[in-house]
Amino acid sequence: MANNMVHDESEVVCIDFWANLFGMRVLIALRELGVSFKYIEEDLRVCERSDLVLRMNPVHRMVPILIHHGRPICNSINILEYIDEVWGHRQETQAGGTRLLPIDPLHRAYARFWADFVDNKVFGTEMSLFKSKGEEEKEAAKEELIRQLGQLEEVLGDQRFFSGDEFGFLDVVIIPLSSMFRAYEQQGKFDLEVECPKLMRWEKRCKERESVKSTLPDEEEVYMMHKKWYGIE
Amino acid sequence: MANNMVHDESEVVCIDFWANLFGMRVLIALRELGVSFKYIEEDLRVCERSDLVLRMNPVHRMVPILIHHGRPICNSINILEYIDEVWGHRQETQAGGTRLLPIDPLHRAYARFWADFVDNKVFGTEMSLFKSKGEEEKEAAKEELIRQLGQLEEVLGDQRFFSGDEFGFLDVVIIPLSSMFRAYEQQGKFDLEVECPKLMRWEKRCKERESVKSTLPDEEEVYMMHKKWYGIE
Repeated sequence: MANNMVHDESEVVCIDFWANLFGMRVLIALRELGVSFKYIEEDLRVCERSDLVLRMNPVHRMVPILIHHGRPICNSINILEYIDEVWGHRQETQAGGTRLLPIDPLHRAYARFWADFVDNKVFGTEMSLFKSKGEEEKEAAKEELIRQLGQLEEVLGDQRFFSGDEFGFLDVVIIPLSSMFRAYEQQGKFDLEVECPKLMRWEKRCKERESVKSTLPDEEEVYMMHKKWYGIE
Repeated sequence: MANNMVHDESEVVCIDFWANLFGMRVLIALRELGVSFKYIEEDLRVCERSDLVLRMNPVHRMVPILIHHGRPICNSINILEYIDEVWGHRQETQAGGTRLLPIDPLHRAYARFWADFVDNKVFGTEMSLFKSKGEEEKEAAKEELIRQLGQLEEVLGDQRFFSGDEFGFLDVVIIPLSSMFRAYEQQGKFDLEVECPKLMRWEKRCKERESVKSTLPDEEEVYMMHKKWYGIE
């Protein structure tokens, strides 16, 4: 237990598992806003959760968890909102500034809408693709996934990032998904370069950023881990 | 189509169906903050969605939808955030003020966490209770629902409202659920007065508010409607 303690209550701690797409959002956001933090790995390959996770997220027993001043914040989107509110520097009078969500309430609402779309639609379709039985079911999941990624591409349009010129909230939310893009292509036998060329250019732009580069793990290893999770080894 | 048009782009419009618990949140929030709005009923008893809904929420084709300056905002929690950002008057130096979410980022995170808990856990358990086949399954769903309502009661504690002394975001999120409390009791054969006495006192306090009183429809009719939705007529 001793090595699981969070010693300095003022410090920022992120508990996560390396292959967890939801947790990558938190790491990227912290790095984007220049927040120093301590990382604690929770091994999701074993069934039992650590005492720290059970104590910090007794309701869901899941990671990522952000701990700040000794208090836990759970759910990745919720954590992003918190990070933005605590460490985001808003410069309302000029373009840019270091913040995640846009300033305009309508744009904020759109960003949250599409974040919810990713969490409640795209991840479900990913699961259908991986767990589908038979060709017909797999084909349907593949078509649906391409359609949903196409919807995201439509939101992106010709912008550099989902938020416009600056990398922001929705980019942070979606870019971890790119760790699975090659896996989608292999599972569904399609070429994202053909289906969603703009999204692929966006992916490259994001991956030039230090925050993203230093967070996203090796794609092949993420794919292997997800295969285990989906039981398709 | 003509009577479905939103004529004045500056006006606030809420599209909803009377028995939709998610939509009740939006109506209560608007009334709490004193926002005038036009209400358009979308009849969810028929399968086809209106042209207005298809145009304003092509992704999910669901209500509630808030339209402001002619632009749609979808998903009830997202709409509450928008309403708070646009019409909430924050009085940071004194207690109270008319706003939905707390000011402190940690308290905001907790409010959002429990809102997500209601949407992703409690509503799922409600569905299990209503759609369960056989006594054993029903009993399990009932126990889980009581446990989850108990978790909410624990969050409430001895406070007047979920946010403390003032009616706020989490109260708005949860109070529409009370339209189903009697239905839960009948379906699960338990007494909420016994299981969650504090939650029941909170329910009464909320229902003294004009915003809540004028929004929540007749419980029996909501129950009947949900029975139809769950196919247990």
